Amino acid sequence: MDADRLWINARLATLAEGTSGLGIVDQGALACKDGRIVYAGPMADLPLSLQVKERIDCAGRWVTPGLVDCHTHLVFGGDRAQEFEMRLAGASYEEIARAGGGIVSTVKATRAASEDDLVASALPRLDHLIAEGVTTVEIKSGYGLDRDTELRSLRAARRLGEARPVTVTTTFLGAHALPPEANGDKAAYIATVVDEMLPAVAGEDLADAVDAFCEGIAFSPDETARVFEAARTRGLPVKLHADQLSNLHGAALAARFGALSADHLEYTDEEGAAAMAAAGTVAVLLPGAFYFIRETKKPPVELFRAAGTRMALATDCNPGTSPLTSLLLTMNMGATLFRLTVEECIAGVTREAARALGRLGEVGTLEAGKWCDLAIWNVERPAELVYRIGFNPLHARVWRGK
Amino acid sequence: MDADRLWINARLATLAEGTSGLGIVDQGALACKDGRIVYAGPMADLPLSLQVKERIDCAGRWVTPGLVDCHTHLVFGGDRAQEFEMRLAGASYEEIARAGGGIVSTVKATRAASEDDLVASALPRLDHLIAEGVTTVEIKSGYGLDRDTELRSLRAARRLGEARPVTVTTTFLGAHALPPEANGDKAAYIATVVDEMLPAVAGEDLADAVDAFCEGIAFSPDETARVFEAARTRGLPVKLHADQLSNLHGAALAARFGALSADHLEYTDEEGAAAMAAAGTVAVLLPGAFYFIRETKKPPVELFRAAGTRMALATDCNPGTSPLTSLLLTMNMGATLFRLTVEECIAGVTREAARALGRLGEVGTLEAGKWCDLAIWNVERPAELVYRIGFNPLHARVWRGK
Ligand SMILES: [Zn+2]
Ligand SMILES: [Zn+2]
Repeated sequence: MDADRLWINARLATLAEGTSGLGIVDQGALACKDGRIVYAGPMADLPLSLQVKERIDCAGRWVTPGLVDCHTHLVFGGDRAQEFEMRLAGASYEEIARAGGGIVSTVKATRAASEDDLVASALPRLDHLIAEGVTTVEIKSGYGLDRDTELRSLRAARRLGEARPVTVTTTFLGAHALPPEANGDKAAYIATVVDEMLPAVAGEDLADAVDAFCEGIAFSPDETARVFEAARTRGLPVKLHADQLSNLHGAALAARFGALSADHLEYTDEEGAAAMAAAGTVAVLLPGAFYFIRETKKPPVELFRAAGTRMALATDCNPGTSPLTSLLLTMNMGATLFRLTVEECIAGVTREAARALGRLGEVGTLEAGKWCDLAIWNVERPAELVYRIGFNPLHARVWRGK
Repeated sequence: MDADRLWINARLATLAEGTSGLGIVDQGALACKDGRIVYAGPMADLPLSLQVKERIDCAGRWVTPGLVDCHTHLVFGGDRAQEFEMRLAGASYEEIARAGGGIVSTVKATRAASEDDLVASALPRLDHLIAEGVTTVEIKSGYGLDRDTELRSLRAARRLGEARPVTVTTTFLGAHALPPEANGDKAAYIATVVDEMLPAVAGEDLADAVDAFCEGIAFSPDETARVFEAARTRGLPVKLHADQLSNLHGAALAARFGALSADHLEYTDEEGAAAMAAAGTVAVLLPGAFYFIRETKKPPVELFRAAGTRMALATDCNPGTSPLTSLLLTMNMGATLFRLTVEECIAGVTREAARALGRLGEVGTLEAGKWCDLAIWNVERPAELVYRIGFNPLHARVWRGK
């Protein structure tokens, strides 16, 4: 057995399935070859025959899987700082709309942006995530709302994964909002999503999953189901923005379609939690949006625990309701605002986030066979990653062994 | 007229007193000599005779005063991540106390730490503040609660100001909590603070101000007044942790002593707000602690506005109730949680924070005569500094002209 790199004197939080808690190995070692983990376990059990090109002493530092941000809208034009400022100064929604605010302003700016523009404006956001140890990030479209801009947004997302040492997964979110030119005709717009946009997206292999926003202000359960059926026909897995502002039973709908995840879930009920658990649909909690829009109804964490629903955490980075580019802060918000435990928070941005992307076979835990994506931390105990606010203790980050 | 450095093509937010809003100069220039600002204003009005050694093109970037964090407990031993983890896992206060948690654990760790230890453990926290453009930071003692450890903490704070290009102001907070060995005798402990600690602190010139914690769980208004009278005798300005958990009329007490600031203030009433305004006592709001302890009562921002009380924002960085090392995030919390406007947030971490330290003559605005402390930002408009969450758009930082 040989390896390209060997990390020794590490305290591993493997998050391996079947282990309890964080899957801790106190005196740990980790070896990689060709970008894949070939060993993760006690130093004492390292194969005697191991031949290594490079050896790295972690000096007792903690090593976790590289972090996974499983729900972002990282690609968009413009920002909404002016709208934020106006709202704090007391402007009404009408005044903000008249000044060009709201999601329409982001759609307009995104349509006006070239692919290069979209890549360039997203890079600082991506770089901030990367600086905190993120090695996999999901990026949704959904600010184009026409075929060309949706395609351009997804191409920009793919290019971000080439521009930086990070794995990008893409999600087509044509059913994010109704564009102004649809004049309120949701059925016609959904037909465009299903009949025009989705085939074009799938034809270029631009999306790894399909998402929708099921809500009173967006699309109905029936409209959502139409999108999901079309995705199924194309063999694409689905995800859902569900039950954020009201209970339309989006969680159960997502489960019925075997969705990878349902996300937000502030208003999900016991039946929805149970359906998700049974279907293996991950509950992706988004405390940044909860904080930013000053929501008071919390997602039903106790119901998820009781049902055995898996929980992940993500930034939901977007200009309107969560201009957040820190997955570490997201963990603190998960603990402080939703009362998740330290273990739930750390699993939520590693193993469970990978599961929510359908990538658990490749990333999310420190186990032989997976990509060697690591975050190495200057902390005394993993709880510090969750406890500290606005602090980055990352010592080093490894993506595919490097 | 000559200058060492000249910044041109800058958009200045001068925060100068007497200007409205942020004191914006759109096509601005700023010159410094011997570390002091000698010109801040329109490029067009630059003195024709100006001789400059170095010229820096800001390419239209925004320049604000260097940020001022006017309330921190940056120097302490240990951390409280384990206690945080236990609480999330459902441990009771008794269980946490039995496991050595609470402020007593920080006092114990601080007493066990050498001056070098205290400097070394605080540096990463200070460095995180500096990386976001902080050029002045206040640091309190208050985790020693005996003469030697209080002195050592303040010496460590002074040394932090020598170790980094940042101005450190120090505050003696002997009356932070009752140490365990006092066995509940608050009067005797306050006598020690006043008769032993304060003379030693003043004798070594280790404190720029004196602070106390006036609260049911800490010290009464009468005990606080004893500390303030002793500070007055020594010619030291005072500050107060006031009205955080209940209304003991700490704001009015602070105003009566002409305090530089009263801090927290969740329970302050109209009379307290008016007294502070009349005395020129700044209201220092600490949204990080509000967030972390999940307080629901907000400080009376409307009353402060109506009374004309000045408002500042600070991190309150401390291990028990605000493990926060981001003044940018503090601004977002001030806006999101307390509904401060963008202008109030930016003034709150520059001009008003300087006022809360009694340093407004030296820092806090971009005006000739003050130290040339600058933060130069990669943003399109100042509102972005408040709007974004977990993102650092600092382009460059200047402390005393460098
Ligand atoms: Zn979203
Ligand atoms: Zn404090």
